[in-house]
Amino acid sequence: MVTAEPTGRPEGTLYGRLYLVPTLLSATAPEAVLPVGTIETARRLRHFVAETPKAARAFLKAIAHPDPIATLEITPIDPLPFALADAETWLAAGHDVGVVSDAGMPAIADPGSALVARAHQLGVRVVPLTGPSSILLALAASGLDGQRFEFLGYLPAKPAERDRAIRDAVARVRTTGATQLFIETPYRHVQMLASLCELLPGDLVLAAAQDITGEAEAVLAKPRAAWTADDRARFAEKRPTIFLIGRAQNLPTAPR
Amino acid sequence: MVTAEPTGRPEGTLYGRLYLVPTLLSATAPEAVLPVGTIETARRLRHFVAETPKAARAFLKAIAHPDPIATLEITPIDPLPFALADAETWLAAGHDVGVVSDAGMPAIADPGSALVARAHQLGVRVVPLTGPSSILLALAASGLDGQRFEFLGYLPAKPAERDRAIRDAVARVRTTGATQLFIETPYRHVQMLASLCELLPGDLVLAAAQDITGEAEAVLAKPRAAWTADDRARFAEKRPTIFLIGRAQNLPTAPR
Repeated sequence: MVTAEPTGRPEGTLYGRLYLVPTLLSATAPEAVLPVGTIETARRLRHFVAETPKAARAFLKAIAHPDPIATLEITPIDPLPFALADAETWLAAGHDVGVVSDAGMPAIADPGSALVARAHQLGVRVVPLTGPSSILLALAASGLDGQRFEFLGYLPAKPAERDRAIRDAVARVRTTGATQLFIETPYRHVQMLASLCELLPGDLVLAAAQDITGEAEAVLAKPRAAWTADDRARFAEKRPTIFLIGRAQNLPTAPR
Repeated sequence: MVTAEPTGRPEGTLYGRLYLVPTLLSATAPEAVLPVGTIETARRLRHFVAETPKAARAFLKAIAHPDPIATLEITPIDPLPFALADAETWLAAGHDVGVVSDAGMPAIADPGSALVARAHQLGVRVVPLTGPSSILLALAASGLDGQRFEFLGYLPAKPAERDRAIRDAVARVRTTGATQLFIETPYRHVQMLASLCELLPGDLVLAAAQDITGEAEAVLAKPRAAWTADDRARFAEKRPTIFLIGRAQNLPTAPR
């Protein structure tokens, strides 16, 4: 059993480690998007805190966890006090614990960070494993500035508040140059793109990245003024999508 | 040859795809942090734009590219006009092109995004491959809020400007709650931590994530007031480090 760093740990106890286990973003083969190192580590864990236990069981089956899935300890992160208590009990008993989100990297755009914060309080070593993050992949694929960016999470659901959030994001691009990223629940994509096309200045780049790593992967990035009705229709499907706003880059002309 | 989406592409030409190929963050085995899918795709590419060609060649050797490395086309991203011209020529000839950064995900915190922006102008399909990003892994491992965060890139080198940037970051945490992330060149880590410990309010969490995925991986996250001289000394080594500032989470007490 590998043990934690000594900081903050009650003397005489051997805490386990907290592993952040990324999961699939779409119905791909695990090997397509998860390193062998991540899969092997997840396969040897027997204790998990999951955003949704059902999704975690499906993931552990997909990566061919060697133990019968029903024998694994999987606690939901909600309600949080019970998740923290379970994790602390397991860690204090020397077990390594995995945190799994429904999709992608845990503790990013999900409630898992509370568990990580408690681990730091306990002096438990936290190990982030590599896997897909739709936010980072969308940012890289957008061609927007990746040297400075801001992730806003979900924008407010109410139209007036959402429009204000979009205007605030435009103002941040203008003042800081930082690329703005946010997500929306799939059934609101059509309305979101309509609002973005209405509210964005024509010269700002609007980008959408849909079903990243999946069969229907599509990334479109161009000035808002160039977005057509057909472009918007491509993102009307109920698939996970990241939206981005940023400055157009001044690209040099090819020396020919 | 897989071809690009039709948008913007001159009629009759068959453009290749632009693959964003993540590389290693440290001297690990490629399988530890790169999915088989990423490695296999990188192995079949023969045209690359690289932040540094020498680092790209070392990477392609590490993943056992099947062709003699000297026969691969590798152009540096700087100067950009030539990199864009080479990439466009290759893509127009139907070749798939890989973009590789010195470490981690290309087009994040490096100049690669210009190439991606040009690909979108040409209607070339951009495919981001999964791999490690020190920024995202550090954020997840910090336990700080991952629902809203801002990446600032490198802070200014001059002390007065850097201190102002730190104060601005603190103000953003106070007003928006967004976790602030930034990087620094390794030989300035000691000074950076000294400035952070001097300028941060004691209740804000200061986190540092060093050598993520590597042998010396260390993540420390606690209120600034709790950082000791020993803590700071742990990050004095000249290893890649991400710094983070954020609100302490109000964790519930365990129900016992």
